[in-house]
Amino acid sequence: MARGRREPGTSWERRDRSQEVTAAAIQVFYEKGYADASMQDVADKVGVLKGSLYHYIDSKEQLLHGILAESHVEAVAITDGVSALDVPPIEQLRAYLEQMAGWYLSHIERVSIYFRESDQLTGERLKQVQAEQRATARYLRRLLATVQEAGDISADRDPKLSALLIFGTMNSFPDWYRVDGPFSANKVVATFVDWTLTALGADPKA
Amino acid sequence: MARGRREPGTSWERRDRSQEVTAAAIQVFYEKGYADASMQDVADKVGVLKGSLYHYIDSKEQLLHGILAESHVEAVAITDGVSALDVPPIEQLRAYLEQMAGWYLSHIERVSIYFRESDQLTGERLKQVQAEQRATARYLRRLLATVQEAGDISADRDPKLSALLIFGTMNSFPDWYRVDGPFSANKVVATFVDWTLTALGADPKA
Repeated sequence: MARGRREPGTSWERRDRSQEVTAAAIQVFYEKGYADASMQDVADKVGVLKGSLYHYIDSKEQLLHGILAESHVEAVAITDGVSALDVPPIEQLRAYLEQMAGWYLSHIERVSIYFRESDQLTGERLKQVQAEQRATARYLRRLLATVQEAGDISADRDPKLSALLIFGTMNSFPDWYRVDGPFSANKVVATFVDWTLTALGADPKA
Repeated sequence: MARGRREPGTSWERRDRSQEVTAAAIQVFYEKGYADASMQDVADKVGVLKGSLYHYIDSKEQLLHGILAESHVEAVAITDGVSALDVPPIEQLRAYLEQMAGWYLSHIERVSIYFRESDQLTGERLKQVQAEQRATARYLRRLLATVQEAGDISADRDPKLSALLIFGTMNSFPDWYRVDGPFSANKVVATFVDWTLTALGADPKA
């Protein structure tokens, strides 16, 4: 089939519309908070009748879960890419901090929802997201331990506590970073990476 | 009047009961979240009829505002104490980080409510708490600038961005610190102070 000649009702159109729904839900959940947001708000943002949303999703919770699951897929893509780098562990750490912080700042609404709303999920969905959060924490903890074994960060730094401080710093970006604020995303990322490597006792300029 | 001989119904008893109500509200808001918590929940926690609560407070929002306002009073007591210390600015900074982090960890439910729920306030109460938050941020920013002028932290560190990273790290304590967790409050405070001074380019052991 030639490009641009897909017909209405094909799976391509369905997938595309579903992305619109997700994008609208991110805006609505970010602005109103998940608890106060309604499916009607999401439908209004997409510009469709509320009933049409149910072609794409079953519930508001499924929408939230989809947003969080997609964020995790992005985080895994970053960790996979970093793990595949053929560089010393300290350079993997630097790349991880740079890429994660950069991703956070370029998806600040999504990240805000991730940290504010994930405990609104229930049952298996909650368990899945919690397992994903543990996997993300474990990845950084292990990377820090590997860098420490290589002698590139201070032996005094506990990898687990260091990972908590690092995630704490990043996870608070949505509380204060604004696209139109006084600091550019590049400035925040560069400062955060330098700050963190210095705090770990690494040489940030090396 | 001799100690311990106060009669029921005196202002002393009223004040005492009001502290119980606040303590109960902190527990309830922490466990259920402010939006989902009811005055009935608070009454049940205190062990009184719901109507009795209205001797002490007018509304759930007043209760939340009281909790946040008390927290600000404590923060001001710390900054006033630090400002009165007759030591170099870098030692004031160290004392501030130690005392604030220590206070956060010993009042983790209250701090959690402060950061999760303050945007639930409305009108004048919201304005007041936002003004208090700006004052707290300004205090640290100015202290950092003073330490920098004295040459005790790196000239590369922007005081405003540094303050955002420091508060971000502290404000996330409620997300992961647990009284029965793997790290004692003393360990977290000592690591956080050392981490932050190192990141700022100060000598943490000096």
